[in-house]
Amino acid sequence: MSGLITLTTDFGLQDHYVGVMKGVIAGIAPQARVIDLCHAVPPQDIARGAYILAASCRYFPPGTIHVAVVDPGVGSERRALAVEAGGWRWVAPDNGLLGWVFEALAELGLAVGAPEGPAWRLGGAARAVVLEAREYQLPERSHTFHGRDVFAPVAAHLAAGVPLERLGPPTATLLRLPRRLPERTPAGWRGEVLHVDRFGNLVTNLRAAHCFGGACRVRVAGREIVGLSPSYAAMAELGAIIGSDGYLEIAVPNGSAAARLGAGPGAPVDVERLARPAGS
Amino acid sequence: MSGLITLTTDFGLQDHYVGVMKGVIAGIAPQARVIDLCHAVPPQDIARGAYILAASCRYFPPGTIHVAVVDPGVGSERRALAVEAGGWRWVAPDNGLLGWVFEALAELGLAVGAPEGPAWRLGGAARAVVLEAREYQLPERSHTFHGRDVFAPVAAHLAAGVPLERLGPPTATLLRLPRRLPERTPAGWRGEVLHVDRFGNLVTNLRAAHCFGGACRVRVAGREIVGLSPSYAAMAELGAIIGSDGYLEIAVPNGSAAARLGAGPGAPVDVERLARPAGS
Amino acid sequence: MSGLITLTTDFGLQDHYVGVMKGVIAGIAPQARVIDLCHAVPPQDIARGAYILAASCRYFPPGTIHVAVVDPGVGSERRALAVEAGGWRWVAPDNGLLGWVFEALAELGLAVGAPEGPAWRLGGAARAVVLEAREYQLPERSHTFHGRDVFAPVAAHLAAGVPLERLGPPTATLLRLPRRLPERTPAGWRGEVLHVDRFGNLVTNLRAAHCFGGACRVRVAGREIVGLSPSYAAMAELGAIIGSDGYLEIAVPNGSAAARLGAGPGAPVDVERLARPAGS
Repeated sequence: MSGLITLTTDFGLQDHYVGVMKGVIAGIAPQARVIDLCHAVPPQDIARGAYILAASCRYFPPGTIHVAVVDPGVGSERRALAVEAGGWRWVAPDNGLLGWVFEALAELGLAVGAPEGPAWRLGGAARAVVLEAREYQLPERSHTFHGRDVFAPVAAHLAAGVPLERLGPPTATLLRLPRRLPERTPAGWRGEVLHVDRFGNLVTNLRAAHCFGGACRVRVAGREIVGLSPSYAAMAELGAIIGSDGYLEIAVPNGSAAARLGAGPGAPVDVERLARPAGS
Repeated sequence: MSGLITLTTDFGLQDHYVGVMKGVIAGIAPQARVIDLCHAVPPQDIARGAYILAASCRYFPPGTIHVAVVDPGVGSERRALAVEAGGWRWVAPDNGLLGWVFEALAELGLAVGAPEGPAWRLGGAARAVVLEAREYQLPERSHTFHGRDVFAPVAAHLAAGVPLERLGPPTATLLRLPRRLPERTPAGWRGEVLHVDRFGNLVTNLRAAHCFGGACRVRVAGREIVGLSPSYAAMAELGAIIGSDGYLEIAVPNGSAAARLGAGPGAPVDVERLARPAGS
Repeated sequence: MSGLITLTTDFGLQDHYVGVMKGVIAGIAPQARVIDLCHAVPPQDIARGAYILAASCRYFPPGTIHVAVVDPGVGSERRALAVEAGGWRWVAPDNGLLGWVFEALAELGLAVGAPEGPAWRLGGAARAVVLEAREYQLPERSHTFHGRDVFAPVAAHLAAGVPLERLGPPTATLLRLPRRLPERTPAGWRGEVLHVDRFGNLVTNLRAAHCFGGACRVRVAGREIVGLSPSYAAMAELGAIIGSDGYLEIAVPNGSAAARLGAGPGAPVDVERLARPAGS
């Protein structure tokens, strides 16, 4: 038990919502430590939350409890889950937010199950429960803020040592968002921009495996980039690079690629194999 | 003594001001833990800070020390206070920021005094002191940043076990902002929008008690809403719901009510009793 | 060893980058506590980061480890450093980010060396190492995110007790940004606006020593201000005041001087000696 809890939400920091979740946690598990993973998920953008959870989990120590609340269905019949896999735990609504974590865990070589239609079927040592045991939630449960009333107290009880199976009945599947994967083209692969980060870098759904060992031409927003750059500083004016999450990024050194190209989420990105390697 | 300190300010996070307050706390009370309740109070908006403090305190464990700094009068003759009531403590300028906390405590059934003109007169076990003992503040006190020089060190000393009465002479009253409460109309109640949250929800000063058990029509910005929704997801296009702080909210599912209606703080909101219950 | 780590970056809070750094720290040094000093440094604005580090360090307890990542050269040949001086430690790229800290330490009366052309030559008990010992960094080092892969793990190892000299070979100098200091004019001093804070205050590079004991006229953006104000609240409509970092600020009470004057970073600010003291 690490007593470490992370929070990922679409609550932003302009209100007191995140602070109140931490108050609830502190009341139940005074020794637990809380890390804000991200609160700037765009409102109701489940896919962005799912990306962050999948990209980040490997950087947290075993035992970490990840709380994720991007929850347009709050107060409806959607299920709420606690999941354990690979030594980490997650607490979240069952709306797809957790779906991509398991692909990330599988990439780490863990046996955590497999996709099954629109769901993920848990396997190996992975297990999940539906959060029905109300004694681990706040007594007065609102219809609009389960981050405070359900997910924060459940995570705190887990951090305080309550076993997963006490939180509710087991379930073997959870929802998984459809994922737009890069598609084959005659010359290589077509992917798309997933999101724009603070620096204006365009993060795509293409990975190193789609880049022909760097012997590639990248087409985006009417521009062409030949080869991959080893660093932002090595780019002349516009470049392509494998970013820190392992995805192909389009970047401008000391500037914003999003602004320069007028491109954002959903913009198509083509990677074509070069006849001859570019440079190196 | 919980050793838990919360911070609520209008400092934002673009500067180093909040970080420096935490450095001061860490130097005095290394074991104290700090939670950011909210730093996005609009500059000098004492009422917004007062709302957050009143709405949030019940979610923090007994012994929590709440530091609040929305302080346009910093460096002037306005008083600075430390207050203890209901097991919690607050440290703040005496400019109205703490005034609504006591109404919230009274709603919880605590005897904390009563309003007296533009002030709150403390009663029951509630007590307050004026922060005049300079030995619990930074030796060089600036005229512009008492968050760092006065409130952070005082909170840290409290967390480290210094009794309240050592911080300065007692006072029996503190300032309270005038509160715009809903007013009776022939058909029901007229309130107003207090603020807009990150989701674009319009949070009003009306509460469940003004909503005729849900058998109501809500008028706002030229639109009519019949009845209350049980959840955001249950709304068709625009709805009214009792939000997580207990106030009536106007919301758009997966969208911004503020943008849809072009309405913001101060916009009037009318709740009228329906002849017959709506639905239920 | 305080086990206290601060983070100053240009990562913002819209992505998961800062959260992931904290995960890495928690995995290596579970007892270390992390304070966000500032993550809103404008992208690649090394000077703004250097200002924050220099202005803030004195408010943190001895032993604090300050991590700073404003790093346009990430992945290139720029050096990465760990530095110890005055009881504090810093971990950062060697691009000027740490240069002004030493002037701040010298003002506190510490012997930490002296400027030498475009560099700072360490002296006294100050010492630095180049971060070449890869065993204290993440095994897979990306080319784009040394905050996660180098600086966070190094800081965590320092917090866990690893001695500085184990992190790499010593170096006696580090880069220092050129600093635009106020210049003498016939009537007094000419400085400039360094940055605008959240309140719209214009923070300049002029200090109390340039203000003739308050017997001065300040000219900025075509406006004239006579004398210094003792507090924001004492200003009529526009005022000058020595701010909390010790720099002259131009401010508007309950408003934004930046918006009122249409002025921002780089705007010239003249301080002229008054023939007779203003008022007092």
